Amino acid sequence: MAVVTQVDVYVTRTDRNHVTVRVTTSDAREGWGDASLYGREPAVVAFLERHAAPLLIGRDPHLIEDTWHLLRKGGYWRGGAIETAGIAAIDVALWDLKAQDAGLPLYQLLGGASREHVTLYAHASGATPDEAAESVDRCLDEGFSAVRVQFGLPGRPATYGLEDDSPSGSSADTALPEIESWDSAAYLHEAPRVFALMRERYGTAIRLLHDVHHRLTPVEAAALAKSLEPYDLLWLEDPTPLENPASLRLLRRHSTVPIATGEIFTQANDYRLLFEEGLIDYVRSSVTHVGGITPLRKLLDIAEFYGVRSGIHGPSDISPIGMAAALHLDLAVHNFGIQEFMEHSAQTLSLFPHAYSRNGGFAHPGEVPGLGARLDVEAAASHPYQPLTLPVARIDDGTLIHW
Amino acid sequence: MAVVTQVDVYVTRTDRNHVTVRVTTSDAREGWGDASLYGREPAVVAFLERHAAPLLIGRDPHLIEDTWHLLRKGGYWRGGAIETAGIAAIDVALWDLKAQDAGLPLYQLLGGASREHVTLYAHASGATPDEAAESVDRCLDEGFSAVRVQFGLPGRPATYGLEDDSPSGSSADTALPEIESWDSAAYLHEAPRVFALMRERYGTAIRLLHDVHHRLTPVEAAALAKSLEPYDLLWLEDPTPLENPASLRLLRRHSTVPIATGEIFTQANDYRLLFEEGLIDYVRSSVTHVGGITPLRKLLDIAEFYGVRSGIHGPSDISPIGMAAALHLDLAVHNFGIQEFMEHSAQTLSLFPHAYSRNGGFAHPGEVPGLGARLDVEAAASHPYQPLTLPVARIDDGTLIHW
Amino acid sequence: MAVVTQVDVYVTRTDRNHVTVRVTTSDAREGWGDASLYGREPAVVAFLERHAAPLLIGRDPHLIEDTWHLLRKGGYWRGGAIETAGIAAIDVALWDLKAQDAGLPLYQLLGGASREHVTLYAHASGATPDEAAESVDRCLDEGFSAVRVQFGLPGRPATYGLEDDSPSGSSADTALPEIESWDSAAYLHEAPRVFALMRERYGTAIRLLHDVHHRLTPVEAAALAKSLEPYDLLWLEDPTPLENPASLRLLRRHSTVPIATGEIFTQANDYRLLFEEGLIDYVRSSVTHVGGITPLRKLLDIAEFYGVRSGIHGPSDISPIGMAAALHLDLAVHNFGIQEFMEHSAQTLSLFPHAYSRNGGFAHPGEVPGLGARLDVEAAASHPYQPLTLPVARIDDGTLIHW
Amino acid sequence: MAVVTQVDVYVTRTDRNHVTVRVTTSDAREGWGDASLYGREPAVVAFLERHAAPLLIGRDPHLIEDTWHLLRKGGYWRGGAIETAGIAAIDVALWDLKAQDAGLPLYQLLGGASREHVTLYAHASGATPDEAAESVDRCLDEGFSAVRVQFGLPGRPATYGLEDDSPSGSSADTALPEIESWDSAAYLHEAPRVFALMRERYGTAIRLLHDVHHRLTPVEAAALAKSLEPYDLLWLEDPTPLENPASLRLLRRHSTVPIATGEIFTQANDYRLLFEEGLIDYVRSSVTHVGGITPLRKLLDIAEFYGVRSGIHGPSDISPIGMAAALHLDLAVHNFGIQEFMEHSAQTLSLFPHAYSRNGGFAHPGEVPGLGARLDVEAAASHPYQPLTLPVARIDDGTLIHW
Repeated sequence: MAVVTQVDVYVTRTDRNHVTVRVTTSDAREGWGDASLYGREPAVVAFLERHAAPLLIGRDPHLIEDTWHLLRKGGYWRGGAIETAGIAAIDVALWDLKAQDAGLPLYQLLGGASREHVTLYAHASGATPDEAAESVDRCLDEGFSAVRVQFGLPGRPATYGLEDDSPSGSSADTALPEIESWDSAAYLHEAPRVFALMRERYGTAIRLLHDVHHRLTPVEAAALAKSLEPYDLLWLEDPTPLENPASLRLLRRHSTVPIATGEIFTQANDYRLLFEEGLIDYVRSSVTHVGGITPLRKLLDIAEFYGVRSGIHGPSDISPIGMAAALHLDLAVHNFGIQEFMEHSAQTLSLFPHAYSRNGGFAHPGEVPGLGARLDVEAAASHPYQPLTLPVARIDDGTLIHW
Repeated sequence: MAVVTQVDVYVTRTDRNHVTVRVTTSDAREGWGDASLYGREPAVVAFLERHAAPLLIGRDPHLIEDTWHLLRKGGYWRGGAIETAGIAAIDVALWDLKAQDAGLPLYQLLGGASREHVTLYAHASGATPDEAAESVDRCLDEGFSAVRVQFGLPGRPATYGLEDDSPSGSSADTALPEIESWDSAAYLHEAPRVFALMRERYGTAIRLLHDVHHRLTPVEAAALAKSLEPYDLLWLEDPTPLENPASLRLLRRHSTVPIATGEIFTQANDYRLLFEEGLIDYVRSSVTHVGGITPLRKLLDIAEFYGVRSGIHGPSDISPIGMAAALHLDLAVHNFGIQEFMEHSAQTLSLFPHAYSRNGGFAHPGEVPGLGARLDVEAAASHPYQPLTLPVARIDDGTLIHW
Repeated sequence: MAVVTQVDVYVTRTDRNHVTVRVTTSDAREGWGDASLYGREPAVVAFLERHAAPLLIGRDPHLIEDTWHLLRKGGYWRGGAIETAGIAAIDVALWDLKAQDAGLPLYQLLGGASREHVTLYAHASGATPDEAAESVDRCLDEGFSAVRVQFGLPGRPATYGLEDDSPSGSSADTALPEIESWDSAAYLHEAPRVFALMRERYGTAIRLLHDVHHRLTPVEAAALAKSLEPYDLLWLEDPTPLENPASLRLLRRHSTVPIATGEIFTQANDYRLLFEEGLIDYVRSSVTHVGGITPLRKLLDIAEFYGVRSGIHGPSDISPIGMAAALHLDLAVHNFGIQEFMEHSAQTLSLFPHAYSRNGGFAHPGEVPGLGARLDVEAAASHPYQPLTLPVARIDDGTLIHW
Repeated sequence: MAVVTQVDVYVTRTDRNHVTVRVTTSDAREGWGDASLYGREPAVVAFLERHAAPLLIGRDPHLIEDTWHLLRKGGYWRGGAIETAGIAAIDVALWDLKAQDAGLPLYQLLGGASREHVTLYAHASGATPDEAAESVDRCLDEGFSAVRVQFGLPGRPATYGLEDDSPSGSSADTALPEIESWDSAAYLHEAPRVFALMRERYGTAIRLLHDVHHRLTPVEAAALAKSLEPYDLLWLEDPTPLENPASLRLLRRHSTVPIATGEIFTQANDYRLLFEEGLIDYVRSSVTHVGGITPLRKLLDIAEFYGVRSGIHGPSDISPIGMAAALHLDLAVHNFGIQEFMEHSAQTLSLFPHAYSRNGGFAHPGEVPGLGARLDVEAAASHPYQPLTLPVARIDDGTLIHW
């Protein structure tokens, strides 16, 4: 029986930093996993190298379920994204090894394909409604038919989701957080204006999504959802802070706009009230941030039980390895909804050889045995970690608010 | 205005590893905080040095509330004990600085003393009921009148809470986790037998506590609580896994044994259902693991609203600095219940000069301005970090179970 | 150790009566608190002088938490604003002493500044919509950007919130209550007309608030909230009588207008159902009427847990000492919403030297150690108490209704 | 039409202080009411003389319902026992006048007698179980068949409800509060022991009651109720603090011991959750403390709707005038349960001529027109107010607890 002989952790900086794990076995196979967590890379690396890796050496790589519980419960002081990102990378690497061992693409081990390909949504944004529309146009030109639209507030150039001049379209590329400004009242006025314009311009032919990024109070979120109801969103995302899931009750009483949430949840229990009370429609957890294929598959099983679908988080803060894991799961689970997709930079893509492919607004994980994505370790050597931090947001009086 | 000029992180290994943070200001004052998290020290250090410290340099140390939110929300991918332990150390160090600046012991800033001293409970354990009773005797000899009793299962020498030969009484002192064995059925038979013996031996004069350490299913926990009801426990702790707080509903329907839980929760929201449905009686969160004085004080305010009292986690995995923070809060809040206390080894105590004192079963935080506890950095230099890991538990067929 | 040696209570009448408490210590320090309760001054004075003061003499002024509980539970027959106003003044005076002792402005003891300054809202009113608009204009000229708008009903000159010719803009200045008339049906017609006109005139640039003052039935309140929804209120205040908090359920099912309530609540429990069911968005309790800094800080901690923000009551019925206490708390708590502000008359201001300052629509508590507000006892001597009573309201058939 | 011409307020000190109100009309009739509130007399007097009385002069005394709302809502800053005690006295005085005007005893105006007489329960107490039993014997000798039994804790001579040597049996007779000690654990052990002894001694022939006086946490209260279940209590009173009515849910799940609560509630809304969730069996509000005949009759109407019965508070802290009001209501309402009765001292009785009479364990309000109780103003003149204060309770570490 082959055992794990080595666990290597790499951090590469292209437009963003990505944390990659390689699990090597005594029969010289390599499994790969993504542990990227924007702005928390050294903590994730420490978790992996100092706490998780020692437990893996000598273990049978086939023990995925047991290993997951060992890493999660075994630390006792569990919880949080630094840990789940680390565990996810190991879990995905073990699934990669298992699928390679089976000579099958990973999705086959997850039950086989439930669909031909995976529907994606793209990101559009603009400081003004017109610039946002131009950005939507570009998405449509690339073949997407579902687009998340973010927009600026008058007089506030920097806000969440706006593209800047960086190659990645990331809004954050400094070692210390930039401070963005925010005004919920202005936003509540602007949002319906922007989506009215979108529907006027595009009719009902395209699917529109929008991300509030946790910034509203319960009653503001309810008012927003009500005001956006005429514009037929595929979903409204993270309208309120995750710290009080019950805050979606009010929104749910006033609107039938579908709700997506959970990209910053780190365990199934975080969704409990939302599921039992029917407060959401899409689960946003990613393989990378919720702890791997093992827990996300279970979470989606529970979601199916409650009539909720998947909507996996997928900006370029997830590496191509994490995207590959998502696509295998997307193809296999019955209650797939939609997959977020933000094209990685050419530089990032060149470091991460991968089997998955995008065709317009669709993707497929590919047919090579295993996960079908890895890090080119040699090429990566010249792209070492350099600190990058997400921005923080403050309202006009200086009070910190959710970014 | 003084600003933060330096943040230093130290890990010292005596019988356990402790993570200590020193925040130094431009006027040469030093604030101290505890970030100890058993078995996760390097990850906590990475969080502190690489992610938290850069945000502090140049900031006004008086901005405690804002800094707490900056560290928590500012990372976006928040949550989990690695993060909260790190934030706690900074929060406590800032409160230490503020109280020093005020020339007052910290408890005075928290509203002043609500009692003369802080009642403690001690740890007793034994592989057999008789050995457990001898251990209780030793606690009573030292002046404690409240004792947590843990016991072995016949034929299973190692189980959670049993003392070993290490100087600290810690059940864990290896770099790789030891594997303990477990059998819930045997435990459900043994527990009432042990506590019947305790009451036979000690009458009603002492307070007895017991920690289940998350190992039971909902119905097993309900059965245990019912079987222990005649023995008048001060509390039964963590009967079920934290991942499903609703599992206490069944127990609560069948027993009036007081319930304590939450030492591995990391945010107030984790207690929401427990508070709103009246499922617990004591909050077990520690200053060190829930993110500092700032969030624990708020959590205890919410607990007071729900008729729930404090029972702060306090084994020697919390450093004397963390114990000092707990004692200041214990003395000040109205809804204090009891404080866990496990004497640090002489070696640990010698590294952490502190103003608090214990007198039999009571403690007091002392009257020096500030927190009144710090690390002796010079002495600590000869006690560097060496990996230690908590054990894991498996049942007889090999299935992993909560330790 | 210094102890309390004297408690003095002063009532001063300028445009309104204000009750002020001075707590003097054996080391000759003075702490100040506001116990103003419009129309109940002699009862508050009796509570303070005859019941509360004797308990304080000889006590350590640092014991704030314990003193609060002693005054509250210690009387057994507790509850109500006469008591909480009295306790508040003592609690604030003790915090003033503690902060002076610390050499820090009070907000620093409450966690430090969470924002640069405190956003205020002003009062506008007019018998007709046009007069109300002129009043709003004056508020904007003074630099406010958030304005509470009250208006008369056709043919009913006197109604709650209308300015009269008294210097304070108070609607009440007689020893026996004036009787105002009321007609809910007329009001339900007028209110949307007034706010439509406001939005027509001011666009979306300003924040509008409105106070119903408890006068509507549950279904009337729901209908009002629905009819005002297009006009984007920052809040709708006290739509229904406080005696039945559940009456907001209907409103909440039909409207997303933010709701503020609680200025006449006197304990946290009064908010329980409102918090747990998510029925309100702003807590209106003042330091002066809810029992001091100690309980209001706890209440706001609970509110933060529920996603609810502060909106502290602040007409000139609160003295400058009470306003100072509010501003310290406003600056410090994370979940600050907005602060009500009604400029005191020049005469009042001259009697109460204070460190806080207003700059347009913002205020700051100032940087002097302690609370930074006190009564000029000598100057006050020539402004003794003279009875003033709030009006009462009756509908056309003579039935008494909430004013 | 006669109008009110004078309102006089008297405070008389015999074994306790009592506050009495006389309302005089232009046709020289006198109505009497009780506003006694132990330890808050000067505040009640100030409320009555300075705030309530001026509103009454010149009013038609027949306007009881309107006057009640005028006094309650008319002050705007309403609530609390200082206010409700004052309003109660006026309300009862107006009912006295109305019944005198009708030439009928008051109970006739309340619907007439629903029973022949009013069943009473008496107070027994003792530092030891044996002393308590002797005290019960005395009650039985006096003809009572329902007895509230309070008992001391070993080594703690002073605790709530124990008789002392004062003529009134009051446990409190000093101007500054005495401090009693308390230990919930000892109490939870002692209580079932005492009641087991009672049932052993008296069989099932007598009804036993017990008052916890708010001192237990929710889980302690549930455990107590469970442990007392074999002893067939008529009721268990105030097991938990009034500040969180939901705390009775747990008790209710574990016991069918009837629950009485509410003597320190001051409005019907305080009972809302208890009624709607079926958590109590007896309403303890007194005429004197809940605001008069007018609100208590309504409260008992609501109680009838929910299957809850009356159990009016009636120690000697209520004057004979307040007792008279209670007895009229007791005789008339359909859902009468039982009336608390503590014989006033001979001195007190001599100052308050009254028509009601006790016959063994029963009482009757008498048949004179009106209330049938008044203060002998001349005799009272030699018994002026002298401060008396209820004790407070602290547990062994000094923490304040509900008395």
